[in-house]
Amino acid sequence: MPKNHRFDHNTFRVEYQEKLNLEKIPSQAGKELKDKQFGAETLAADVSSLQAAQSLLYAAQSHSMLIILQGMDAAGKDSTIRHVMGGVNPQGCRVYAFKAPNDEELQHHFLYRPVPCLPARGMISLFNRSYYEETLVVRVHPEFLVPQKIPDINIEKPKSLKKLWNRRFKEINAFERTLTSNGTIIVKFFLHVSRQEQKKRLLDRLTEPDKHWKFNRRDLEERKLWPDYQRAFEETLTNTSTEYAPWYVIPADDKWYARAAIADILASRLESLDLQYPEVKPADREMLREIAAQLQAE
Amino acid sequence: MPKNHRFDHNTFRVEYQEKLNLEKIPSQAGKELKDKQFGAETLAADVSSLQAAQSLLYAAQSHSMLIILQGMDAAGKDSTIRHVMGGVNPQGCRVYAFKAPNDEELQHHFLYRPVPCLPARGMISLFNRSYYEETLVVRVHPEFLVPQKIPDINIEKPKSLKKLWNRRFKEINAFERTLTSNGTIIVKFFLHVSRQEQKKRLLDRLTEPDKHWKFNRRDLEERKLWPDYQRAFEETLTNTSTEYAPWYVIPADDKWYARAAIADILASRLESLDLQYPEVKPADREMLREIAAQLQAE
Repeated sequence: MPKNHRFDHNTFRVEYQEKLNLEKIPSQAGKELKDKQFGAETLAADVSSLQAAQSLLYAAQSHSMLIILQGMDAAGKDSTIRHVMGGVNPQGCRVYAFKAPNDEELQHHFLYRPVPCLPARGMISLFNRSYYEETLVVRVHPEFLVPQKIPDINIEKPKSLKKLWNRRFKEINAFERTLTSNGTIIVKFFLHVSRQEQKKRLLDRLTEPDKHWKFNRRDLEERKLWPDYQRAFEETLTNTSTEYAPWYVIPADDKWYARAAIADILASRLESLDLQYPEVKPADREMLREIAAQLQAE
Repeated sequence: MPKNHRFDHNTFRVEYQEKLNLEKIPSQAGKELKDKQFGAETLAADVSSLQAAQSLLYAAQSHSMLIILQGMDAAGKDSTIRHVMGGVNPQGCRVYAFKAPNDEELQHHFLYRPVPCLPARGMISLFNRSYYEETLVVRVHPEFLVPQKIPDINIEKPKSLKKLWNRRFKEINAFERTLTSNGTIIVKFFLHVSRQEQKKRLLDRLTEPDKHWKFNRRDLEERKLWPDYQRAFEETLTNTSTEYAPWYVIPADDKWYARAAIADILASRLESLDLQYPEVKPADREMLREIAAQLQAE
């Protein structure tokens, strides 16, 4: 298991409540990986470390892991999941795609919805989009708040809305704190693509027949709101990148780079727990020997 | 995508209500695969077909798939899941391990429990053990029925029990019929290991420190009930291997053979649906072209 990770994770990590300007953060591959081929080798090594680390997580039953994946449309969320988590034992991993909330979910607090999807001990849950949409798409479209019927919110008043987003940041931080206190490792990734790269990928979806089904007319409307989304991400990331549940801004214009970086962070995060296979006590070892002898003599 | 599958699936398939004698069915590798290396190549080809077929299933959103995996302890269920489903996009696949029912589940009909785990359109659910335990382990241990408080059942009377198992077979068949009518493909595998092979594998768990945690003292008690379990499997398989939801008895003493056979059956079952990526209507194609032009001109 290669323990020498290639990335300095701190370069991606968002500092809590430090001003974040996504335009100043590169979206292209960094210099850690010299090319696509090298990226693929790194990914393979890290996926293999991740596999081994996940087996231990599953056996040790002491921790669980929650991975949050966010990004603009066409940022590469689906393919990242396929490439990074595709090698992990499916018995130990569940992926949940968070689409628009349904009528029942709208009648609850927004942190009601993720609860049944949280990872049990030994398990990994990956959220493809998540409760963070409540300070992202909902921030860009405050009219989505109307059916939520939250008391004392006036969506026409910026001050009232600002109060709500700040409250939601605090609620999310408190929620994630309860999870990490209970043994859940939380790692959050923002797939950072440039506006130009998104254009290229949306055009691919429009022109390649096999990708047509992935195209959603709404994607183009949302693209027009690009600056609003970037502001919403900046505010969300900086206010919820806590010490216990950090956000990483992953340059994602080059998919091979993003995948390798994410696999690397996940593998090293799990390895840092230094988990061990459950130990057998000396008394039990004696018992196991007896049972083995009994079975052998059958 | 290799469409030439190596296995004749009919050799594994259980005929509905035809007498089944597991002792007469081989548990060793068949001649379709000449050796382990050849088995690995076949598995790789089939896993790759399965990946492609699953992508189509996910995109087409017209069907779903339910895979049931049963077998004695140490029959290789976990490792089969890792090897066969490990390559499938985790976003389209969920694995559910059915352990002993909890107190709440015991207060319901036994088919209450699998319902929330059923696959949505486009998805695959794999049950590692399943509601079939209710005619397997419960049949071998009728005392497990006591907390289920089923009306008019006397667990001391063989006739009363026989009536219950037959009712359960019918209930399962009706349940599975409703699912297949609604577009769920159901494929059920019994991993068939010999008693000798189980002994070898349990001894491995007892003597290899990294496998100790997988050993459960109860496994040995259950092993003593081997003939009872075999009878329970025979009765269950023959009575629930319907045309719409067949059982396959997979020789599983050689893990490489079992994995390849299962991947082969799954891939060919999905391919037989002849799914297509969602087609774009001519009118929509025109619209997509307009959107592309608009995006291009940005």
